[in-house]
Amino acid sequence: MWHDRAMSTTGRRVGRPRAERRPDSGLSAREELLAAAAELFTVQGYAATSTRAVAERSGMRQASMYHYFGGKEDLLAVLLEGTVRPSLDLARGLLAAEGSAEARLWQLCRSDVVLLCGGPHNLGALYLLPEVRTERFAGFARMRRELKEAYGRLLADAACCTALDAGEVAVRTDLVFGLIEGVILIHRSDPDRPVEAFAAATADAALRVAGAREEDLAEVRARAAKLAQG
Amino acid sequence: MWHDRAMSTTGRRVGRPRAERRPDSGLSAREELLAAAAELFTVQGYAATSTRAVAERSGMRQASMYHYFGGKEDLLAVLLEGTVRPSLDLARGLLAAEGSAEARLWQLCRSDVVLLCGGPHNLGALYLLPEVRTERFAGFARMRRELKEAYGRLLADAACCTALDAGEVAVRTDLVFGLIEGVILIHRSDPDRPVEAFAAATADAALRVAGAREEDLAEVRARAAKLAQG
Repeated sequence: MWHDRAMSTTGRRVGRPRAERRPDSGLSAREELLAAAAELFTVQGYAATSTRAVAERSGMRQASMYHYFGGKEDLLAVLLEGTVRPSLDLARGLLAAEGSAEARLWQLCRSDVVLLCGGPHNLGALYLLPEVRTERFAGFARMRRELKEAYGRLLADAACCTALDAGEVAVRTDLVFGLIEGVILIHRSDPDRPVEAFAAATADAALRVAGAREEDLAEVRARAAKLAQG
Repeated sequence: MWHDRAMSTTGRRVGRPRAERRPDSGLSAREELLAAAAELFTVQGYAATSTRAVAERSGMRQASMYHYFGGKEDLLAVLLEGTVRPSLDLARGLLAAEGSAEARLWQLCRSDVVLLCGGPHNLGALYLLPEVRTERFAGFARMRRELKEAYGRLLADAACCTALDAGEVAVRTDLVFGLIEGVILIHRSDPDRPVEAFAAATADAALRVAGAREEDLAEVRARAAKLAQG
């Protein structure tokens, strides 16, 4: 799509985009820009980062950047959506799958933590920016809401929640979702923690919050492992 | 203290500070400045807020503001420390107290959530600012670390954790602390939720993460209520 936008309506190329692949990083120019924005937004701050700085960090001119992104908000929206989309895709699959809802919930929690704590930058730290409440980020807000609803449906179907009324399931959904997103704060304090073991421990904790009994957790994990293979 | 700073060494008053109490708000000038900074930092963002804007919002001149605060970082440091200090004071008292560690942990969790979700602005959202990692905020970081250590000691003493090794207690401490601080994200999505009931539900969830059994939670809450009275 950006190939079309690189040619202006007058046929004049404005700020010709660089070659799509950089031989040094293996990233496309678009990916380079996203990586630069992720670094600058999390390290020096969103408000303090200019589009020019993002372009320079990617080794291209500012005008070239506009072939790929409409501006800073566009970069932020794509980065934020990237912290939800893979979990949302997984959640849709898990909602359509058969078998223990507890195991599916465990699997979703584990993967979501790996996503939130993976990558070189803690993009979840950008969730709390005041700018993210604006209309421009409605797509991200919608995806995050849908992901939370998927958590809620898995909790409602989980054997450990069958004795709870709908209001209590809603509260536990908030708490499970808060626990999972709360790893952003834990990860920020201790970025070098091995992610896989921490993700499994967080998924265990989420099941405890949902109401699973300690003696059932090993079985839940075993079923989740089968789900992940299948 | 600011009374002294209001008079410069040459005896000339620079930007005379306003009367200490504003008749309209009942706040001192210092409190007015903190309230204005809390609003502007959370609503329009820390980087986007100037000291001049904070002063104007408080109805005073920028020069007067410097009688109370050395600058924007000072304002932020005081606001951040205010989100931890009351919980830290409570935690010190609870560590010195007698009785069930589970009940004391429940009490700390409940109060901490009330603190983090209380007040007109979600100051916890400022925890993730890149600026907060700098040396200027070492005092805040130290207080937050001490608070987390208090959580850890209560978990280590809790009956539900006696079967766990030290490494597992450390992981559960991270998760309980992350769950409590994670309410910042939940509160941000739903700021009008009644705080008291939510704080109790979160304290229940924290005890579940620590390993408490469902059938023991009513007793933990009852003991915590007695602690709060005594």
